[in-house]
Amino acid sequence: MLQKAAAAKPKMANHTTPLIKDCWYVAALSREVTRDLLERTLLGKTVLMYRKVDGTPVIMQNRCAHRSFPLSKGRLDGDQVVCGYHGMAYNPEGQCVHMPSLANPPTHARIASYPLQEKGPLIWIWMGDASKADPALIPDTSWLDAPEWTTVTGYFHMKSNYVAMHENLLDQTHFPILHADTVGTPEYSRSSLEIHNEGDVVRIRRELKNSPPPPIYGIPMKLTGRPVDRFSDSRFVSPAGHIAFARIANLEPREGEHTDYRVNITHLFTPEFQGTIHYWWFNSRDFALDDAGASDYLASASVKAYMEDVDALTWIQEEVEKGDGPPDELSFGPDRPGLSMRKTLLRLAEAETAQTEEPPAVAVKMY
Amino acid sequence: MLQKAAAAKPKMANHTTPLIKDCWYVAALSREVTRDLLERTLLGKTVLMYRKVDGTPVIMQNRCAHRSFPLSKGRLDGDQVVCGYHGMAYNPEGQCVHMPSLANPPTHARIASYPLQEKGPLIWIWMGDASKADPALIPDTSWLDAPEWTTVTGYFHMKSNYVAMHENLLDQTHFPILHADTVGTPEYSRSSLEIHNEGDVVRIRRELKNSPPPPIYGIPMKLTGRPVDRFSDSRFVSPAGHIAFARIANLEPREGEHTDYRVNITHLFTPEFQGTIHYWWFNSRDFALDDAGASDYLASASVKAYMEDVDALTWIQEEVEKGDGPPDELSFGPDRPGLSMRKTLLRLAEAETAQTEEPPAVAVKMY
Amino acid sequence: MLQKAAAAKPKMANHTTPLIKDCWYVAALSREVTRDLLERTLLGKTVLMYRKVDGTPVIMQNRCAHRSFPLSKGRLDGDQVVCGYHGMAYNPEGQCVHMPSLANPPTHARIASYPLQEKGPLIWIWMGDASKADPALIPDTSWLDAPEWTTVTGYFHMKSNYVAMHENLLDQTHFPILHADTVGTPEYSRSSLEIHNEGDVVRIRRELKNSPPPPIYGIPMKLTGRPVDRFSDSRFVSPAGHIAFARIANLEPREGEHTDYRVNITHLFTPEFQGTIHYWWFNSRDFALDDAGASDYLASASVKAYMEDVDALTWIQEEVEKGDGPPDELSFGPDRPGLSMRKTLLRLAEAETAQTEEPPAVAVKMY
Repeated sequence: MLQKAAAAKPKMANHTTPLIKDCWYVAALSREVTRDLLERTLLGKTVLMYRKVDGTPVIMQNRCAHRSFPLSKGRLDGDQVVCGYHGMAYNPEGQCVHMPSLANPPTHARIASYPLQEKGPLIWIWMGDASKADPALIPDTSWLDAPEWTTVTGYFHMKSNYVAMHENLLDQTHFPILHADTVGTPEYSRSSLEIHNEGDVVRIRRELKNSPPPPIYGIPMKLTGRPVDRFSDSRFVSPAGHIAFARIANLEPREGEHTDYRVNITHLFTPEFQGTIHYWWFNSRDFALDDAGASDYLASASVKAYMEDVDALTWIQEEVEKGDGPPDELSFGPDRPGLSMRKTLLRLAEAETAQTEEPPAVAVKMY
Repeated sequence: MLQKAAAAKPKMANHTTPLIKDCWYVAALSREVTRDLLERTLLGKTVLMYRKVDGTPVIMQNRCAHRSFPLSKGRLDGDQVVCGYHGMAYNPEGQCVHMPSLANPPTHARIASYPLQEKGPLIWIWMGDASKADPALIPDTSWLDAPEWTTVTGYFHMKSNYVAMHENLLDQTHFPILHADTVGTPEYSRSSLEIHNEGDVVRIRRELKNSPPPPIYGIPMKLTGRPVDRFSDSRFVSPAGHIAFARIANLEPREGEHTDYRVNITHLFTPEFQGTIHYWWFNSRDFALDDAGASDYLASASVKAYMEDVDALTWIQEEVEKGDGPPDELSFGPDRPGLSMRKTLLRLAEAETAQTEEPPAVAVKMY
Repeated sequence: MLQKAAAAKPKMANHTTPLIKDCWYVAALSREVTRDLLERTLLGKTVLMYRKVDGTPVIMQNRCAHRSFPLSKGRLDGDQVVCGYHGMAYNPEGQCVHMPSLANPPTHARIASYPLQEKGPLIWIWMGDASKADPALIPDTSWLDAPEWTTVTGYFHMKSNYVAMHENLLDQTHFPILHADTVGTPEYSRSSLEIHNEGDVVRIRRELKNSPPPPIYGIPMKLTGRPVDRFSDSRFVSPAGHIAFARIANLEPREGEHTDYRVNITHLFTPEFQGTIHYWWFNSRDFALDDAGASDYLASASVKAYMEDVDALTWIQEEVEKGDGPPDELSFGPDRPGLSMRKTLLRLAEAETAQTEEPPAVAVKMY
């Protein structure tokens, strides 16, 4: 059996590392947020989402400041949400503006209203220090609603911690094994690999020259069996997601064919609790834009391949939760991108923890 | 976001406050306790209930002193309960009087037998310091079996802590919101309110003059749309319950009508665990005593209204349990009766905790 | 109510005592372990079981050393198990011998491979200190596959801690009560009892002379109502099990009848977690070897009687888990064999705990 190292602080994030709050995460798809009250748990907190009369989305703490009634069980009154217990009405900024049993609204009564940004099909939330919520920090996903791209998409609720999910996405050595029946063509493991760190972003780049494409590219591009060059640039862009940019060069283009085909795969996920994830994926292409058959194929092939990851990460999470103590992991050379990302996550988490050493709130305040 | 107060001892009871034991609680309805063995968890302990041959009810610890077998899985032998594992027989006082494998019964073997009182349809239990179990401390509920009253009743098993339940019952400002579709007529919030503290009892009194009654009074009294005065005296009578006394004065009595109508609403509830409650409610009236239609209406209208409270308190409990740490509650003027009650509950709980600092029992004793 | 003793270290094992690892436990029936990967949790750890090409059984840690993927979700390649995530291949000794993404297998990568012994229908595992795994310590169960014996067998997954299960098996005073309708004939409680301790083995011997046998003996032996002597020698043989040896002497043998009939009842059980057990039972006889009717009768009568124990121990476990703190058990003279066994279990558990004070493993190692 392995000799165990002396107890030491972890050197990189694992499934027990506190969740990072100072980050833009996807809270919901745009189309999910309507004039109905929507509740969801993000980073361990339940939030309430709705749209104002003018269509602007709002995300607030779901818990009434008075007696913790979940506001999602209340109702909208114009732009305000009205608690279903005593009728406290909050404006979209979280300020209580009315309480039926009081002549004047309680001016000290506020709940959290979260900075958010709606970009294309996504609504992003910032649950950490609001003064740091710079919209420029939101990862670029402009292709998701650009007319020169077509996207298929899906959602999984996963029983996994988000560190393992990130590591899975930075790791291409599992393709020939876990995805042997879907996207893991054997020649892929022979491709070259470069790792780049740019600030907190970890990039892995692969090239594979002059070989036939796997079905997930070959079928929608109609290049099955034909020689192509494949370029992949896959990035841990933030704690909130990972984006893979693929380019396929058609080496022997026939009349009417493209010479270049691009596929962007956008993996966005938000921890629900420490061991569960909301996961939205998007497969975007710059070719065959109106080809419903290509969309259907890509949607079902993506679900099939991602289910393999979902299953694997679920089994790992269950194994880790069942076990006694954190796993005693061994890592190897090909794990370097993931380890680099995990060191980043740990550094970010520890920096936040150091700042937020606040006493727990137990006092009941009366105004 | 709210500034959080420095960590401090809570100033009033909340959902984490230890349960109060020195109190008479309802253990069961009289009719539930028979010659069959009945198990129920009260204040976190499982108890066994049955009747002796002469009809006297008995409540004992459900756990055999020998090997923790639940006695409710055993059987009655006359007035004694016989454990289903080794046949230890206990008399109603909890004394072991027979053990088949021993020539003489083990005289040191005793289990808890709880002081109880049967009053009308109720069996009350005292699970704290037996020397303090004064029957005079049982709240008066004599109307529940008085011939000049008719009562409809029901039971809920609720996922709520009992502090929030008490606060709900002392709070009338949620009526127009939570009960908007049932008992929360809008004019009620304009009524006058007086708060009285008498020892540990907290009373709120309301009057509403010269207005038509809500359906829950108007329909059974046959006074719909007619002018009445309403007087309500609603009381936190003990950790075990809350009783509301209502009087409706018929301002324009017609021939054969009463001038006064009384309704007593008896809410009795016993914590099962910290976050769940056994809740028995009773709606008693001194009019239309034999009117089955009135009884049917009152039963279904009560269930409908109480379900709104059950739902609300369940949602709050779930929200509080999901969250990180105790809720950071804000309170306002109309919460004063509830806050007063919560200070009383905290004081009672802390007084008991100070007394019962006993070491945990881990020794296995052999006689 | 009982005075509680001052907090003290327990004097004998109870449901909270750490599980004993330095012991041979049954991991599986031989026939359960095949060329399919079998996962099972034993002593709180998940293990993987399979057979090599030559039929030799293997039991390994189920968690891949790399990223904790459960190997049971992988596949066999000859004698090696291949992880389903990255293809790490382990030989039956737990040594990684291949990793597709590395030119050379990671020599430091090992997982636990457990000492095991296959004996008759059983595969035994040693999960503690491998240097102590002496096959001579495996309890003799040679009758389970001896030609002069016929065995019926069954399995229960029980919600009970194994201490209570052992105590149940050393205790015959519950027979007339818990098993009143099955094996608990009243005269049995009048039989003589001797207790022997031989090292860690606790034996109880009973004799009952010249009385008719209970149905579980009388029916398969065809001696119902006839005078027999009964001799029983029931032993706590190790933390892994209990074996009862019964001999029935036919006092008035008729032509063609045996004078002696033997029944060995082998109870083997392995803690899954602290509060659950894998329980295999075997009822072996040296008579009526080919009598299918006797086998059917014994199988169904055994299940019926053992279900009474399973139910009782489950109820006790639930009662104990529901309660606040360890049970405050009283013990009596007839409990002496069980108490002796429980002292042994505590001594063994404490000796192991003292040795394995190792720091928790949190470091992520990279080779």
